[in-house]
Parts: sequence; structure tokens; C-alpha cells
Amino acid sequence: VSEQPPTLRSLADLRAVIDRLPGPDRDAAAKAAAREPTLTKPPHSLGRLEELSAWLATWQGRHPPTVQRIATWIFAGNHGVAARRVSAFPADVTAQMVANFEAGGAAVNQVCRAVGADLYVDAIDLEQPTADITTAPALSEAEFMAAVRRGEAATRAPVDLLCLGEMGIGNTTVAAALAHGVFGGDATAWTGPGTGLDDSGIARKAAVVATAVATHRAWADDPLELMRRLGGRELAAIAGAVLGARLRRIPVVLDGFICTMAVAPLVRLRDDVLDHCAFGHVSSEPGHRRILDLLGRRPILDLDMRLGEGSGAVLAAAVIKAAAACHAGMATFADAGVSNRGAE
Amino acid sequence: VSEQPPTLRSLADLRAVIDRLPGPDRDAAAKAAAREPTLTKPPHSLGRLEELSAWLATWQGRHPPTVQRIATWIFAGNHGVAARRVSAFPADVTAQMVANFEAGGAAVNQVCRAVGADLYVDAIDLEQPTADITTAPALSEAEFMAAVRRGEAATRAPVDLLCLGEMGIGNTTVAAALAHGVFGGDATAWTGPGTGLDDSGIARKAAVVATAVATHRAWADDPLELMRRLGGRELAAIAGAVLGARLRRIPVVLDGFICTMAVAPLVRLRDDVLDHCAFGHVSSEPGHRRILDLLGRRPILDLDMRLGEGSGAVLAAAVIKAAAACHAGMATFADAGVSNRGAE
Repeated sequence: VSEQPPTLRSLADLRAVIDRLPGPDRDAAAKAAAREPTLTKPPHSLGRLEELSAWLATWQGRHPPTVQRIATWIFAGNHGVAARRVSAFPADVTAQMVANFEAGGAAVNQVCRAVGADLYVDAIDLEQPTADITTAPALSEAEFMAAVRRGEAATRAPVDLLCLGEMGIGNTTVAAALAHGVFGGDATAWTGPGTGLDDSGIARKAAVVATAVATHRAWADDPLELMRRLGGRELAAIAGAVLGARLRRIPVVLDGFICTMAVAPLVRLRDDVLDHCAFGHVSSEPGHRRILDLLGRRPILDLDMRLGEGSGAVLAAAVIKAAAACHAGMATFADAGVSNRGAE
Repeated sequence: VSEQPPTLRSLADLRAVIDRLPGPDRDAAAKAAAREPTLTKPPHSLGRLEELSAWLATWQGRHPPTVQRIATWIFAGNHGVAARRVSAFPADVTAQMVANFEAGGAAVNQVCRAVGADLYVDAIDLEQPTADITTAPALSEAEFMAAVRRGEAATRAPVDLLCLGEMGIGNTTVAAALAHGVFGGDATAWTGPGTGLDDSGIARKAAVVATAVATHRAWADDPLELMRRLGGRELAAIAGAVLGARLRRIPVVLDGFICTMAVAPLVRLRDDVLDHCAFGHVSSEPGHRRILDLLGRRPILDLDMRLGEGSGAVLAAAVIKAAAACHAGMATFADAGVSNRGAE
């Protein structure tokens, strides 16, 4: 795949890119389906590992699929709404954690090292928080698209698998607002403790979420407008990375609630837009299980994690790597001289 | 820990070893508990990874815990009951798969390579299947204890984490018989498709399980006698490895239904006997979820796998490795200059 960078100057450009995204590679999928039953194991006994290797082939567009080069990108952004005391941590922590990623001291650094993934961090205009979404659009169209392009740019290096993560004090509030704005339901059902709010903090946060969605209710039927108005730079970048990866046939592993909400609105525009994405884990932030259920998607891991940073995505990449290794590396019944079933 | 090999000549010896197993290292556990809240993340945001690193410290008996050397041992055995058509594959497949492990062609070889684990295979007297458990004890006491010693011997090399797996055509039947014999319930509730029986095959297998347990019902209150009478060499070796690992402070990752049933009877003798073991995954073989529920233990992964070979255990070792890496390698709030919570 040699893909020129798409034009991404306006929401209309973004809509056009979504319309022309490539579909599954049915030839690679057929080859994976043909090889799987020849491998030395009972049929389907590797369970979801078999699904994951077929998914990899389908969206890498080649067979056998490979997972040698795993890139993890963390996008960071700051949020005006953080001033409304919606986080247990001060907004300064966004930049401090970016420094921690760069110095190798965060959880995701250790997980990347354990799994064998490269880590890249893109801190987007941290000194310029988004507007407070309870009173104004988070970003102008130009600001939003600039962040989308930052994400798209992260997909230009050839990798086998792209793990996405985020950092941004206040961004579970933003994710809850997007969920409530795009998918409806009650604001409280989408609002959780984030980094560790107590019950009164969660109630305050839910009120902020409800107010934000009410402020922008005139755009309730326009997912891209809601992404600009209720989102943030790191969420826009994640959306850009997911679309860029699809254009370049790079399967993606999404992380938790924020990462999922950065792209979930896109399914309103195109049903299959996230088919090249795996959901690495289900976060203990309660909105995440809810949105996964709505999307009809099952996470790979369920480990009560709720850290963000891409930590759950990278950990799931270890499972995906093993799935690819089994599919590509196992002996067939014929090669190994193992009797196949049917001896009864 | 410098531990002389325990005497393991008789069931009485085995009972004595179980009685004197070491308990948790409370000092290492306390150090893990003290370090965890200093790390640069919201409290408890790594979920089960935090539990796993504390568990590692507790049972390695050191802080910080490390997961550099992961050993995987697969024990293989043959079963006289296989002649009763309880498997979709012929008994020859046990030896053929051992050759496949040794040649590097099985699923577990690929998973070990992906995760960075060493693999060892011990095929125990494959040319000498156990007796048919529907009519006789599977093993004499001498045969049973010889297999226990094979497992114990596997724990003499110093490693950080031991993953256990098995291969043996007919051994889900044996595992179901042990479950039914030791934990009661209905034979059909413990009996599943194994390598791929159809419904009539499963019904035939459940009848075999019920008959086997009835044959040995006089020993229903003696878990060690049931392990000898209803088990098999690879299951006995797994029990020996679990006990040897406890003596040498090596945490263990168990695999699926057979691996779990090889040691679950021991909890009847001592409640905490499996506290140094993690349950790597829950198999789609239905008895496994049932026994995990009875033991009150939560698996690390749930990926619809049902292959055995230690494949689920080794995959879970990747999660445990990441957990240790986070606990040991993350920066503290003080070191990284990150503001801790409480800014409200």
C-alpha cells in the first residue's frame, strides 16, 4: 500500500476520507481461513486467537499476518473543562506525565518494554487547553483538523500493529459528554470516577456532562461536529490515527473509554469504520463496558485496569502477537505427521 | 531458598510434604503494598496487574518481584481409558504431539517464543498407558509417586515463574472423573467435548466418568487416593511440580481444566495449597469454569481457548511479566515530579 496523505483540512474532507476507506482484504481472509484447520490442534481450540489472526490477515491485507513491529502512540491534550473540578488530579499532571513517558517512568513504558513495542508520545498544544465545553465548542474546526492531521501523521511509518492511548486531565469528562451526546442515555450512566473522584465528585462531573451536551444539542445529529465541540485534541488525533491506519492497512488496538469514545461517533457515519480496530481491554471506568456493548464488540482483556496511556492496548498486543505467531508458525498435521481427528 | 528434594516415596510422604509447605512471605508482601501507592498513576488504576505484582512478591519471597526467567513444563501421559472412545483423536496423537513440541511446531512453541518463555517437555512412560479407570486404579502407588517426583524434579532449576501444561489423549475424561469424584455434582456437568466430541460422544464420555467414580467410590474421602486411582502420570507430575515450586518459592501459572484438576483435590487437604498458583485462563471446556468457581479463583484471561499444552498459562505469563515490570520499573510521584492527587 502506497498511500498519499489524505487531504484533511475540513470536516467535509474528513467525511470524504471516511467514505472512501478501504474494506476488508477478502483474499487474505480466505487464505487464513484455509490454513487454520490444517494446523496441529483440534478445530477452534485456540478460540479468540484464531479470530485475531484472521482479523490481522484481513486488515493487514496479507497472509500470513505478522506482528514484528508494534508501535504505540500516546496523544496528550489539555481540557478547559478541567477547571470545573472534574478530576482528582490537577491539569498540570498532563504535562508532567508526558515528561514521565519521555523519561521512561510511566506504566506504559514498562508494558511496552515487556511486550516489545515502540512508544511515541505526541503532546498537542498542552499550553493551550480546549475551551470549556459547558459554554463553548472545545475546538475550532481548524484546531480540530490540525489535531486530526497529527494523528494521521503517526500512521505514515510502516508498522504491523498500532496501539493507541491518551493522556489528558479531564478527558473522561469529555469522553462521557461525547457518549451522552452521540449515543444518548442518561449522563450519569456514562460518568465514572476517572482518576478517582468520590461520589460527590462524580455527581458534579455528571452535571457538567449534561450541561455540555445541552449546550451543543443543536448538533446532536452530526457526529463530526460533536467530536469537535465536545472532544479534545488527543481524541481528534486518535480519530485521525484510526483513519490513517485504515488507509495504510495497519490494524489498530484501542485502549479504554477515552480512546474508544474518540472514534465511536464515526460508526454513525459508516458501520464498518472500526472493523480494523481491536478493543484491547475493557476498562473499569463504567462507560467503557457500556459503549463496547453498544458497539457489539468484545474486548480482549478484562483486568480492572483504568489507567489509559494505552496500557491496556499494549498488553492486548501481546495476545495478538501470540495469535499471529501461532497461525504463521505452527506445523500442519501433514508436516508434523500428527494424526488428524476422525479415528472413531 | 536452598531446599533439599523432599522425600516422595509414598502417599504418606506426599501428605507430609503438603503439611509442611511454606506460607506467604509477609515481609515481601508488605513492601509491595507500601510501594504501589507511590507509583505515578491513580490508586488501583492498574487493577489486576497490581494484585499480580503483590502476589509475585509474596510467593517469590522477595521485593521487587522479577519475571525474567519463565519456564514452561509440559508433562505428557497416556490413558487406558482412551480405548473407550472418549476422545476425537487416537491415542497415538500423544506421542506425535510430543514430537511436535520437540520440533517446535505446536501452538505452545509459538506462544513461548512470543512471550519469551523457555519450554521443556517430559513425556512420562507413553508406551505404558494407565489402567482403564472404569475397572482398576489408573496407577499403582509406586507409579503415581514416580510421576510426582518427575514433576518435583522440574522445579529444581531456579526460575522466576513456572507455567505448567499437559498433553494426553483421554485426559479431559480423567480430569472430569477427578472433579466428579472429589467435588461431587453430576458427571455430565463436568464432562465436555474435549478435543471435539459430538453430543453422543459427550454422553458416552459422561457415562465413562460416572462408572469410573463409582468403581473407586470407597476412596471418596481420600483426595490422594483419588488422584492415584482416577488420574494419570501427567496430572501426578503437575501436582509434584506445584508442590516443588511452593517449596522453592516459585510462583506457578496453571493452564486449563486438566492442569487445574491435577491439583484441585489438594485443597481438600490444605486450604491454602494453591495460593502460590495463578490461573492463567478459563478454558471453554465447561468443567473449568465450574472448578474455578468452586475454588473461588478468577482466571487472568478468558479467550475461549481449550488446547492445553500450557498455551493459556504462557499467554497469561505475558500479563504477569508486565505486572512485575510496572511495579518494579515505574517512577514514583516524588522521583518524576508528578503532582499527586488531592488538588481539589
